[in-house]
Amino acid sequence: MRFDHRHLLGIEALRPDEIVTLLDLADRYVALGRQQEKHASLLTGRTQINMFFETSTRTQASFELAGKRMGADVMSMAMQASSIKKGETLIDTALTLNAMHPDLLIVRHPHSGAVALLAQKVNCAVINAGDGRHEHPTQALLDALTIRRRKGRLHRLTVAICGDIAHSRVARSNILLLHKLENRVRLVGPPTLLPSGIEDFGVEVTHDMREGLADADVVMMLRLQKERMDGGFIPSEREYYHRYGLDAEKLAHAKEDAIVMHPGPMNRGVEIDGTLADDINRSVIQEQVEMGVAVRMAAMDLLARNLRARPTEVMA
Amino acid sequence: MRFDHRHLLGIEALRPDEIVTLLDLADRYVALGRQQEKHASLLTGRTQINMFFETSTRTQASFELAGKRMGADVMSMAMQASSIKKGETLIDTALTLNAMHPDLLIVRHPHSGAVALLAQKVNCAVINAGDGRHEHPTQALLDALTIRRRKGRLHRLTVAICGDIAHSRVARSNILLLHKLENRVRLVGPPTLLPSGIEDFGVEVTHDMREGLADADVVMMLRLQKERMDGGFIPSEREYYHRYGLDAEKLAHAKEDAIVMHPGPMNRGVEIDGTLADDINRSVIQEQVEMGVAVRMAAMDLLARNLRARPTEVMA
Amino acid sequence: MRFDHRHLLGIEALRPDEIVTLLDLADRYVALGRQQEKHASLLTGRTQINMFFETSTRTQASFELAGKRMGADVMSMAMQASSIKKGETLIDTALTLNAMHPDLLIVRHPHSGAVALLAQKVNCAVINAGDGRHEHPTQALLDALTIRRRKGRLHRLTVAICGDIAHSRVARSNILLLHKLENRVRLVGPPTLLPSGIEDFGVEVTHDMREGLADADVVMMLRLQKERMDGGFIPSEREYYHRYGLDAEKLAHAKEDAIVMHPGPMNRGVEIDGTLADDINRSVIQEQVEMGVAVRMAAMDLLARNLRARPTEVMA
Repeated sequence: MRFDHRHLLGIEALRPDEIVTLLDLADRYVALGRQQEKHASLLTGRTQINMFFETSTRTQASFELAGKRMGADVMSMAMQASSIKKGETLIDTALTLNAMHPDLLIVRHPHSGAVALLAQKVNCAVINAGDGRHEHPTQALLDALTIRRRKGRLHRLTVAICGDIAHSRVARSNILLLHKLENRVRLVGPPTLLPSGIEDFGVEVTHDMREGLADADVVMMLRLQKERMDGGFIPSEREYYHRYGLDAEKLAHAKEDAIVMHPGPMNRGVEIDGTLADDINRSVIQEQVEMGVAVRMAAMDLLARNLRARPTEVMA
Repeated sequence: MRFDHRHLLGIEALRPDEIVTLLDLADRYVALGRQQEKHASLLTGRTQINMFFETSTRTQASFELAGKRMGADVMSMAMQASSIKKGETLIDTALTLNAMHPDLLIVRHPHSGAVALLAQKVNCAVINAGDGRHEHPTQALLDALTIRRRKGRLHRLTVAICGDIAHSRVARSNILLLHKLENRVRLVGPPTLLPSGIEDFGVEVTHDMREGLADADVVMMLRLQKERMDGGFIPSEREYYHRYGLDAEKLAHAKEDAIVMHPGPMNRGVEIDGTLADDINRSVIQEQVEMGVAVRMAAMDLLARNLRARPTEVMA
Repeated sequence: MRFDHRHLLGIEALRPDEIVTLLDLADRYVALGRQQEKHASLLTGRTQINMFFETSTRTQASFELAGKRMGADVMSMAMQASSIKKGETLIDTALTLNAMHPDLLIVRHPHSGAVALLAQKVNCAVINAGDGRHEHPTQALLDALTIRRRKGRLHRLTVAICGDIAHSRVARSNILLLHKLENRVRLVGPPTLLPSGIEDFGVEVTHDMREGLADADVVMMLRLQKERMDGGFIPSEREYYHRYGLDAEKLAHAKEDAIVMHPGPMNRGVEIDGTLADDINRSVIQEQVEMGVAVRMAAMDLLARNLRARPTEVMA
């Protein structure tokens, strides 16, 4: 079991075998999470600090539970209400927390690259919980685990990622991961929500949902930031749903056993039909949330092992 | 020891013997809470999530401490700052948290019935920490425990509930519980703060404090929502205190050993005289807070036993 | 090992030998904090409640981690969002939390004396985490520990405290502590930020940084509240930095091995030059943060021992 990283900053740095190692370990934590006694005490006496510079219910809750179930002391900072307000820089805040000897820092930040910058300054392991439009690696890993459990494999699948690709770190991390494991990725969305030059990533691009979903094994919907509506990106909620919202009719173009994913929180009736989202034969949205806790436990486990093995050496 | 419920949604569904079972167990947790080492590790490895859609210092703190003393991993969500803001529905939020496999969800919500609705959608045990004007069962149970310990019994007592009955879930749950155990309940308040048709509940109703308190064993004051003042419900703070605020003179109409209760937070000089609130011979207000932690530990204990016994079956 | 206090409300009440006792114990917790397994389980089953009526990232985080590493159940109240809003008094809030049987209350409050007032009303041990302009004892203790470890002693040192002395509880607690241990204290700042009559405390006072820093062993910078700028106290950020901001040139007047301290959060380029703040040969700012956790663990440890020894008797 090799995982040669001190931090988990993005999918980009991971080898395929490292991804598989992490998912295999996460499978075991899924089983643990379904028991009454959900504790693995591998992180007892360790300190985890959550620094979320953007609010997030589900991701922060998922990391908090993951840490507590590993036995860590978990502290969540409300960074909006913090010293940042008093004019302290991001790096000073990080150095301050670092001086309290955490073992794991979980960081979300609105700026791409901010988490990697911070990771260079601290002694502990850092997990990127989303930085700007850059990466959100644990989301891609939980999506991968969900797909692998449902499809029985994680290669040679056709995955359609639909909606607001341009602003989505979730899309970016997923594209990277799915490519590394030799899947076929199709991006579907309005031209204003697809980044220019994206074809260079080796993905297929289309503006038509029916074309994009044709023979897909997995349909991954993205959350639409409503504030981008009527602001030049997209015409209106209704028009968007008509063209890009997932419903039974559009899904019929995908494979018969295609699964439907969404990272949440959902806008029902905007990017996805409510009935479809609740259809437990197609939708794996709740399962994604469950996998999230397990994947985060696995990531913490692997990073803590590396801290244990080489407490002072910096690995990158 | 029988307690045949999967959730604790209200007093209405409880049998008298179940109430007694819970109070007997709570008595043991009172003793534990007075020791230096306050842990009962019955919920070790279990996950408790607090979802408070209305802010509440004391109730949320009480549930949080209760869970921690039972050994649970406790996570409190700031629901105001959550995905709800991003347009997610109550049910989607609940399903998301449910997918993380909590064992206990503690929910407060401004709408009557919202907690019961949510309970139908999740796999874990749900405790209603107050829903709209409907019920607040743990408050009624802690009041009952306080009365029983002070009066030596919990039947054939005369209990005067005074103030803003119309808007109070505390009053409603207390009326239900006191009736089940065959006590005499009197409601006292201005006509605008008494719900119409309340006499059908088998209570006595009066608008006069002296008449209402006559020979009472227990005087239970309710918190007055100040925003209802000067808004048609009641004339002014001063006038309200004059007619309905509890002071030594009005209390003299009750039994000599009558106890004074208040669910907090108090408006001193509005619904109760400050000196009387602090009189440890009459006021049991601090004791109510102490009983609150114990009653919540007992409720969690009973619900967790049922989860243990029948992990998948839905009981009601 | 004697520490004859029920509460830690200020440096003023401590004897020199009690300060040394606490620092000696803290040294051991520094060592523990550098291990992977950072737990001392002395407070297992105990309850610590943090009541911060002023926001503070670093101090609250430090107390929270200290408590968790001691094994306590830690609950942090967001007092701004609490019952205080509903009109409840400080004392009622404290009595309510007290009724839940905490062992330790950590309190920060904007009014001088509020924490001592509160301590009189509760059964548990109280630690003052900063009250108005009065005291911030754990800050002075962590500063003392940092100095002692770097200088090898904590007496006959010359300590220059620079900046906004008038509004600083940090300065006040430090002056008291440094005096008790027979150090020489110099205060340096603009006349508007030095309290009148301060010379009576046996300190030297100057408005000139070069004079103030001459032969100093320790240079302790204070945070400048920017809202006091251009408000009559001080002319402008730029002018302040020119005259009172610490840079290499001004520091050259101190001893060659003088250390630089700052309680944080820093305003780089206002009270201190950024490069100097990061110079690990001179600046001990990160070390102060590390010492903070250890000092708080030691304080909790000593207070909990006293609770254990004399659970009901009030000591002062």
